[in-house]
Amino acid sequence: MAEWRGRDVISILDFTRDDLETLFEEADRMKRALREGRVRRVLEGKIVALAFFEPSTRTRLSFETAAKRLGAETIGFTSEEAISVAKGENLADTIRMLDGYADAIVLRHRFEGAALFAAEIAEHPVINGGDGRQHHPTQAMLDLYTIREAHGGVDGLTIGVLGDLRYGRAATSFILALTLYKPRRVYLISPPALEPRREVLMDVEERGLPAAKASLEDVIEELDVLYVTRIQKERFPDPEEYERVRGAYRVTPSTLRGAKRSLIILHPLPRVDEIDPRVDSTPHAWYFRQARNGVPIRMALLSLVLGA
Amino acid sequence: MAEWRGRDVISILDFTRDDLETLFEEADRMKRALREGRVRRVLEGKIVALAFFEPSTRTRLSFETAAKRLGAETIGFTSEEAISVAKGENLADTIRMLDGYADAIVLRHRFEGAALFAAEIAEHPVINGGDGRQHHPTQAMLDLYTIREAHGGVDGLTIGVLGDLRYGRAATSFILALTLYKPRRVYLISPPALEPRREVLMDVEERGLPAAKASLEDVIEELDVLYVTRIQKERFPDPEEYERVRGAYRVTPSTLRGAKRSLIILHPLPRVDEIDPRVDSTPHAWYFRQARNGVPIRMALLSLVLGA
Amino acid sequence: MAEWRGRDVISILDFTRDDLETLFEEADRMKRALREGRVRRVLEGKIVALAFFEPSTRTRLSFETAAKRLGAETIGFTSEEAISVAKGENLADTIRMLDGYADAIVLRHRFEGAALFAAEIAEHPVINGGDGRQHHPTQAMLDLYTIREAHGGVDGLTIGVLGDLRYGRAATSFILALTLYKPRRVYLISPPALEPRREVLMDVEERGLPAAKASLEDVIEELDVLYVTRIQKERFPDPEEYERVRGAYRVTPSTLRGAKRSLIILHPLPRVDEIDPRVDSTPHAWYFRQARNGVPIRMALLSLVLGA
Repeated sequence: MAEWRGRDVISILDFTRDDLETLFEEADRMKRALREGRVRRVLEGKIVALAFFEPSTRTRLSFETAAKRLGAETIGFTSEEAISVAKGENLADTIRMLDGYADAIVLRHRFEGAALFAAEIAEHPVINGGDGRQHHPTQAMLDLYTIREAHGGVDGLTIGVLGDLRYGRAATSFILALTLYKPRRVYLISPPALEPRREVLMDVEERGLPAAKASLEDVIEELDVLYVTRIQKERFPDPEEYERVRGAYRVTPSTLRGAKRSLIILHPLPRVDEIDPRVDSTPHAWYFRQARNGVPIRMALLSLVLGA
Repeated sequence: MAEWRGRDVISILDFTRDDLETLFEEADRMKRALREGRVRRVLEGKIVALAFFEPSTRTRLSFETAAKRLGAETIGFTSEEAISVAKGENLADTIRMLDGYADAIVLRHRFEGAALFAAEIAEHPVINGGDGRQHHPTQAMLDLYTIREAHGGVDGLTIGVLGDLRYGRAATSFILALTLYKPRRVYLISPPALEPRREVLMDVEERGLPAAKASLEDVIEELDVLYVTRIQKERFPDPEEYERVRGAYRVTPSTLRGAKRSLIILHPLPRVDEIDPRVDSTPHAWYFRQARNGVPIRMALLSLVLGA
Repeated sequence: MAEWRGRDVISILDFTRDDLETLFEEADRMKRALREGRVRRVLEGKIVALAFFEPSTRTRLSFETAAKRLGAETIGFTSEEAISVAKGENLADTIRMLDGYADAIVLRHRFEGAALFAAEIAEHPVINGGDGRQHHPTQAMLDLYTIREAHGGVDGLTIGVLGDLRYGRAATSFILALTLYKPRRVYLISPPALEPRREVLMDVEERGLPAAKASLEDVIEELDVLYVTRIQKERFPDPEEYERVRGAYRVTPSTLRGAKRSLIILHPLPRVDEIDPRVDSTPHAWYFRQARNGVPIRMALLSLVLGA
């Protein structure tokens, strides 16, 4: 098991199951402390920089909440402000500035590899808050944590991943995260144009993940977990194609007829209309609980990385 | 007297005089502690979410100041950032997210009823930071608190409300707040197009508030309180009509000739040119003091609602 | 030596060498405390308002970091939000609001004299975070502090100031700051259109600063300090003129051939391409260190002004 203190968090694949188990146990402790109102300010005096070059509400606010619950402070900018930050300045100089001010940097950026690049420059730990199309490790951590909460673990489960598996970094990170475990089966459920990219499929195959394409209808009865992501209209050159396709990737009460009682539905949120609100009141709806898990997971992560 | 702890703050009409007196006494204590530099961090460890879907500087910054003075932390977004927050996501999901992170939510939204809707979804208390055209309860609280400071109370006073009584939520909230008391007389002073909406007038009548339309000139000598609000040019289809009307609703030193010495002028601020800056140095000018009262009132409110 | 507590910080010329020495010694203590992880929360309970009407990342974030490291909290707005703040409201009312909420106000504004104006209105100390084309005193403080760190002081040094000496407030503040000391020689190195304004040159002359125009090539071998600032394309009516000129004001490894070993290069940052990144790895590159000094200097300043 690697040392957590001072560690960069770039890709979920940088972590072992043991690393993650350490994180989850710490998250359990944080969750309990939150519930009982006895969180200790172990990060008092620390500053966490939140450098969001792309919009994000959940990731940004849950990191901010996590830091502040532990007594740390945050500085930073949101995508709107980043426009003027970025005005002509290269990313390296911006990272150097934040590295000079803060004890850790959380970065979101649309460029693939931005977080790794930042980690090479910064002396303080860099946490990838989502970059490019592939990596969003803290999202994957809270996804796994939520599955562990519902099913006790990931091994042996049948898991469907639905939606945009090509451009959505949450879905890709989740699929990569599954390669660290031994699920029974992973179904990739997406329109042909939004199948995972070749390099992701190669990773999946190389790591021996039992993944296969499927339609939701065919596999719904088998699933223990259904991970839903948004399909953006803009991905379809032809709007009619989008309209034709979308129905098959929308989760409604009737979709769920025949599902196991213990099926949990996850979604990185925000959703638009890919999960019918009538699903919210079913016992399958775990996405709000999943979102709330963002705080204890990120508390645990900050606490471990900052060595509290 | 209802329990304050855990309470939603949606409309000023949800409160009794006794409730408000409890609040004002707590605000007195906060004010004294601020002055003497001995504010206790009774909300340390708490997180207050500030969800401002509409621009606001005073309300947002005074809530932020109030929370931080008491040792709480804030998270949230301003209207600029809200554009991307709102992108496709429904308000219910956004509220659920904030409810999962924070201990209380302060909401500003242009839709009537947004705060009540949020309160139905959230488990934590929701405080209306202004929604629709009607409700801005914390503004009304600090308005009443300022009158109490100047005149010892509201009962028996003669009060003028001037400006846009139709679209301005501060003025409407203030008028509704007055129905909880027994002023001698309330004069509604506005251009015909900006008179209070029918449902507000019905509330006023039903609750027995002695209100009547008037011109400023006719009543200025009687007034103990003059509450001024902004008249926006955009409300007038005909710009010439606006130009013709505005002079009658502008407060200048000459307007105030004949006013009682003890008359206080209030304004929710920001003002544009509806109060002449030469009025600032007269003893009537209470609007800056009123603005400063935003902090102790909101400290008292957060402290009561969060049960410190 | 004037009293620091409660003092406004408007222009670097308001300070004596003794004042600055007090500040630098306090910054030394802060720097040591930061390094050793034992910063005391001497400003706990204080609120610092950051009123940035113009974009700024380094100044804003380093003030925010400085305040939070010392246990203070910040409120405020960035330039994007300021658009709605400013909507019609005059600056005086905005300052009064912040003065009612916070214990100190840091102001950035494009208007010359905005900070002085604010200081006349506010009861709490106002710190100029840059206004107009001339004043940016806290930048000058950290510039001097960095030179002191490298060379033990400013007296006797030969200093070049390169770039836009006309519109750049950092360069102008730096030149004015030098008049408080006894450098051996100050070279002003700029395109003719970007020479210092007449009133600055008059100040310089009156105060007996041994300043002269020069070309970089002619003086590079003499320099102990080279202060570089950005030349903005927009300053040149004729783009071709800009292209012809820029090469002479760009610092590259070949520019530095013949420079003293002990030459330090400063830059207020952000840079665009006026310093070649290959210079970063030379011992001359002090600009990142200078940027990091923004935090201890501003910690020292806040601590002195707020009387901790």
